[in-house]
Amino acid sequence: MEGVAVRGTQRSPMQLIPAGQGAAVPLARGQRIRVVNTHGTQVVDFWGFARVAPAEEYLSMEHCRELLQKIHFDVGDTLITNRYSPILTILADSTTAEHDTLIAACSRDMYRRLGRGEDHANCADNLDAALAGLRLWVPFTPSPWNLFMRAPVRDGRRIEYERPTCKPGDHVELRAEMDCVLVFSACADDVYPTNGGDGTPRDAHFQVLEA
Amino acid sequence: MEGVAVRGTQRSPMQLIPAGQGAAVPLARGQRIRVVNTHGTQVVDFWGFARVAPAEEYLSMEHCRELLQKIHFDVGDTLITNRYSPILTILADSTTAEHDTLIAACSRDMYRRLGRGEDHANCADNLDAALAGLRLWVPFTPSPWNLFMRAPVRDGRRIEYERPTCKPGDHVELRAEMDCVLVFSACADDVYPTNGGDGTPRDAHFQVLEA
Repeated sequence: MEGVAVRGTQRSPMQLIPAGQGAAVPLARGQRIRVVNTHGTQVVDFWGFARVAPAEEYLSMEHCRELLQKIHFDVGDTLITNRYSPILTILADSTTAEHDTLIAACSRDMYRRLGRGEDHANCADNLDAALAGLRLWVPFTPSPWNLFMRAPVRDGRRIEYERPTCKPGDHVELRAEMDCVLVFSACADDVYPTNGGDGTPRDAHFQVLEA
Repeated sequence: MEGVAVRGTQRSPMQLIPAGQGAAVPLARGQRIRVVNTHGTQVVDFWGFARVAPAEEYLSMEHCRELLQKIHFDVGDTLITNRYSPILTILADSTTAEHDTLIAACSRDMYRRLGRGEDHANCADNLDAALAGLRLWVPFTPSPWNLFMRAPVRDGRRIEYERPTCKPGDHVELRAEMDCVLVFSACADDVYPTNGGDGTPRDAHFQVLEA
């Protein structure tokens, strides 16, 4: 059977999420994907959208928190959209990162406020550009799932920003529960300690693992 | 001076947020408003929008959490929009409620999922209706500031839903930091314990306190 793709084990090539930039991929229901923290220091802002109506139905952190009754999600959890439809299940997680759900995507306005200029690369614009590459558009920036980002809540209220604890190659594995489009941004942040703490965004990767 | 409004002390009439319904009010920069938990048991879902561009700039829980580094906000805190502009300052708070920032507005889909029928009153629709009353529209439902709602985070991750601890007449007082439109919904929830726990949404009120 050499050279013949065997359903159940076939893998697409590893795909690049360039440092400080975005990428998007459509997934069919049942397909699995691995998101890889290639260098171990990189936050990957992550969004999911219903393929048929991305502007109307999307992975929603505030709905997931409501239903799952937790601020960080675990292997086995099924994440939902703003319409309460299952969109992704977490199949595996090699990290202890907890993956922040509380903090906004970085944006042009954030870097302007921080004195980093008018045109700093940012995850909000990366989302729009990645969707545009698939001829899609949404009228706002949903709150992202910040893969590999550590922003723990202390004393029931205080948010702390911490450096990443991932090892190179750490990854999460997800299964699509609906036909969807996933968007990744190798976070452009060079200010907060969460994104490595050395001011240098780095590449990340994803790989579609065929169902 | 009897009968003459004295600037600095003038108050508009107390205005009703009917049980399970919404209301909206435009505020000019500098105006103050009081939101009153008339019966002490009612959650009031709350949104703020920039008057000039409500679909583009709005009070954002995920941006406030980022900047303030906390999941609940305090007297003296200035809340911001998704563009990092100050929109409201918390001037006073007679409660110990903490005012949830984590949980989605209730919606038609939520009640459908819970078996409460296809047309249950809900905060997401109340937002749209209240904005429509001012000939405004936004293309999505921002994550609300859930006034008077207690959904504490335990052990740094688990969300618990608790009954309200407010007294009748408890209130928060806010100052507008930009020309804005505020929207209130006396939450229609009759399922979760957070909204009184007796399955009966109740009236709330607001009052504009002139600057």
